Amino acid sequence: MRKLSVQILVVTSFFFMNQLHAQQNSPYVRIAKLVIDSAQLDAYKAELRTGIETAIAVEPGVLSMYAVAEDAQPTHITILETYASKVAYQSHIQTAHFKRYKSNTLHMVKSLELIDVTPVVQGSKDARQ
Amino acid sequence: MRKLSVQILVVTSFFFMNQLHAQQNSPYVRIAKLVIDSAQLDAYKAELRTGIETAIAVEPGVLSMYAVAEDAQPTHITILETYASKVAYQSHIQTAHFKRYKSNTLHMVKSLELIDVTPVVQGSKDARQ
Repeated sequence: MRKLSVQILVVTSFFFMNQLHAQQNSPYVRIAKLVIDSAQLDAYKAELRTGIETAIAVEPGVLSMYAVAEDAQPTHITILETYASKVAYQSHIQTAHFKRYKSNTLHMVKSLELIDVTPVVQGSKDARQ
Repeated sequence: MRKLSVQILVVTSFFFMNQLHAQQNSPYVRIAKLVIDSAQLDAYKAELRTGIETAIAVEPGVLSMYAVAEDAQPTHITILETYASKVAYQSHIQTAHFKRYKSNTLHMVKSLELIDVTPVVQGSKDARQ
């Protein structure tokens, strides 16, 4: 009986270690949907540009951030964010530049929705070169 | 008076030619939001992969297509599509592979929303290399 318990413990531990390993090593992808105060849209975009360009330049774990504004509703911003891992994301939100972006834009953002996603297919000319 | 009319005609023509030129030469970016029949989700993803990989491989004007599925609602697919121009997009929807994808998936797609967008900032490690 004790032998079976040990076996179950080993198998269970192995399962959770594998899960943790996958979480630490697979890309973490997210869609952020924001609505911005129209009077502060230009100022918001400037903060977003600085925040994204800094993150891409200095953080190895921030792989891409594509931010777009809807033509019909320009205050509606969507950002597709890809981090090397969940750990890379957790590190990102602790950086000085992210905290600066967050505090500078807090009064500009009317709503924020964060949606965890999983890639289906990522096709780009860059990836083929 | 005739001289003024000619001047107005020239200025107006120049304006519209410039607009046409900008439309033909600036990237055309779009978000497609789809909801897929859950029973056909795997089949849909296979068609989408084939369609995107073919477009990226054979169409110079298809620059990137990032397709993701929501973790909380896996039948909800979002695709961020970047074409070299509006003309490149119009050419894309005339290709045999796009028409095949469209007819093969018609009965799988429960809803489709197309949203024209304009890039705010496109940050990626690839672009820096």
